[in-house]
Amino acid sequence: MSNLRLDAKQATQFVEQIFNGYGFSKRNSSLIAASLIDADLRGITSHGIQRLSMYDRKIQAKYIMPDAIWRIINQTETSLLVDANQTMGQLVSIFTMNEIIEKAQSHGIAVGVVKNSNHFGAAGYYARMAAKKGLIGIAATNSNPLLVPPNAREPFLGSNPLAFAFPTKKDPFVFDAATSTVSLGKIEVLLKNNQKIPGEWAVDGNYQQQKDPQTILDDLSRDNRIGGILPLGGLREDNSNYKGLGNAMIIECLTAILAQGSISADLGNKNHDLSHFFLALDPCLFGSLDETENNLSQMLTRMRHMSHLSEEPITLPGDKEIHAYEENQVKGIAIDQRTFDELNVIANRLDVPNLRNFDAVKG
Amino acid sequence: MSNLRLDAKQATQFVEQIFNGYGFSKRNSSLIAASLIDADLRGITSHGIQRLSMYDRKIQAKYIMPDAIWRIINQTETSLLVDANQTMGQLVSIFTMNEIIEKAQSHGIAVGVVKNSNHFGAAGYYARMAAKKGLIGIAATNSNPLLVPPNAREPFLGSNPLAFAFPTKKDPFVFDAATSTVSLGKIEVLLKNNQKIPGEWAVDGNYQQQKDPQTILDDLSRDNRIGGILPLGGLREDNSNYKGLGNAMIIECLTAILAQGSISADLGNKNHDLSHFFLALDPCLFGSLDETENNLSQMLTRMRHMSHLSEEPITLPGDKEIHAYEENQVKGIAIDQRTFDELNVIANRLDVPNLRNFDAVKG
Repeated sequence: MSNLRLDAKQATQFVEQIFNGYGFSKRNSSLIAASLIDADLRGITSHGIQRLSMYDRKIQAKYIMPDAIWRIINQTETSLLVDANQTMGQLVSIFTMNEIIEKAQSHGIAVGVVKNSNHFGAAGYYARMAAKKGLIGIAATNSNPLLVPPNAREPFLGSNPLAFAFPTKKDPFVFDAATSTVSLGKIEVLLKNNQKIPGEWAVDGNYQQQKDPQTILDDLSRDNRIGGILPLGGLREDNSNYKGLGNAMIIECLTAILAQGSISADLGNKNHDLSHFFLALDPCLFGSLDETENNLSQMLTRMRHMSHLSEEPITLPGDKEIHAYEENQVKGIAIDQRTFDELNVIANRLDVPNLRNFDAVKG
Repeated sequence: MSNLRLDAKQATQFVEQIFNGYGFSKRNSSLIAASLIDADLRGITSHGIQRLSMYDRKIQAKYIMPDAIWRIINQTETSLLVDANQTMGQLVSIFTMNEIIEKAQSHGIAVGVVKNSNHFGAAGYYARMAAKKGLIGIAATNSNPLLVPPNAREPFLGSNPLAFAFPTKKDPFVFDAATSTVSLGKIEVLLKNNQKIPGEWAVDGNYQQQKDPQTILDDLSRDNRIGGILPLGGLREDNSNYKGLGNAMIIECLTAILAQGSISADLGNKNHDLSHFFLALDPCLFGSLDETENNLSQMLTRMRHMSHLSEEPITLPGDKEIHAYEENQVKGIAIDQRTFDELNVIANRLDVPNLRNFDAVKG
């Protein structure tokens, strides 16, 4: 597991400098850095600073354009269609979510669709933006193909994450997850930590279970594309894995199909245009925010205190992230040695002060 | 398995007569019958005519009121809040979906929330209403507690189904499923057919896997409420079962929490007020319907023809239902002996012609 920690503020500054080095404006570099380090602070290591080398490859390949200017193609009082023009997914997503939050504040509900975009990091970041304003927030994206439909030999859908945030009296309830059993980032993290896959997560090209992270990443590389990650529900129809498939297909419909962009199956080789979906909904259309927030807070409290196995507490989606956020503000964000080394290679190339120089790096 | 079949038209007439016998108007009896037999035609036996004895119990207990008149509590251009006033869930759901379809046709998107309702049958029926009009449709409900959160000893959330429908060039893409591994109806059907549970579906009060349908139904009865159905993902955190939990919690937020009704955990004993959620979204906010429908149709066709295990074809969510619908129009709807007998007891009590008299009953 990770044995290094970085001070969150210093890590944010480092990421800002990296993106500034690529040619992003100071303001945009700062937005990107804040969203990536937010994932690390919440313990979502798979979607934080460890993804920098992936962004680096995409920027070098010119799939991500540092000077891109996104534009609104069409809008109504309750909707927004945005062409990202190959900017970083984070930037156009923050823009779009802010726009539809404003629309939802005036009209109760609003929906935004983004085309020609790139990987947007952790979906929960955008859903949470709505919850901070007292709104329900939804964020989703398609992504490079990795999900193998039941009985198939190849991937077709992406990890296709969905994030949902609902305001409460304290921290919002946030559920942010790939619709596949796991995201590719989780496989990458296992590999970096020399660990095998613990559950029913992946198959080879013969639909046989696969436990080795490196083999899965090789199988899913753009030249191979056999086997991949299973839908939630795992290998067997008996365990309702078609429901996991259905969830991933809903996200594909709301992103690529609505945006008329490339579907996940076609991403990663010739096409690099991801599509995103955002929704904001005002609970006050149906009752007072105060009462609604109270009711949800009470429900979450009751769930956390349900009768359970003595050795295993009840953990709700989002609870680990809330706990990690508090802890990592103090202890610093976790980083594995391989990511640490990768980042310094990038830093050296861009003439950015090396991570080793940070005071807060602890053994 | 089922060894009887009923002609769909005659079965519809029978159900109409039953509900008319309870005191529902002819028009309302006809709406209820059409929605129940639609589920049977699509092979969703768990949510069709076999549920009549459950509705019968609820009508006799006066949880469902045949003469109830629902009313709009609040509405805007894009939203509707409806008090069902204890009518059949089907009636208020058809009303609400029709209203928000009209709103979405004018304003691009609309959302409806229903409180004080009852079991509404198969969620897909309402989502499909939107797709028939060229709109994306979403329908969801909370329900009596049956879902056991990971490591818990008792149920808290309902089966909390979500249905999603998206128009295509031919049949709409419809994904309609409980967010739990299975719905209670599936357990009831196994019991009626003397079958054991084939997958990782349920646990007892010690969070140990349970395979016997009768034991699960007894454990979940209102006097016991221990153990229950697992979230999608099954028993183990390693298989991301917290994602199945998260999906069920999203539905609880969109239904009971938005409607300020009873949460699933509190339903079935003192409280019988279910809450529903409906959404309609016009894809034309983002592009032409023709192109959008074409893109989805092409995606579904590509998925059905993916490279797959030779003995196991690729089946997409909704495919079985489309096939069953065509077949059952001709062959009649399947019904098991126990349901057949239950229905005749009800028919006799209400002085409705007995099912045995139907010409179309085949051995």
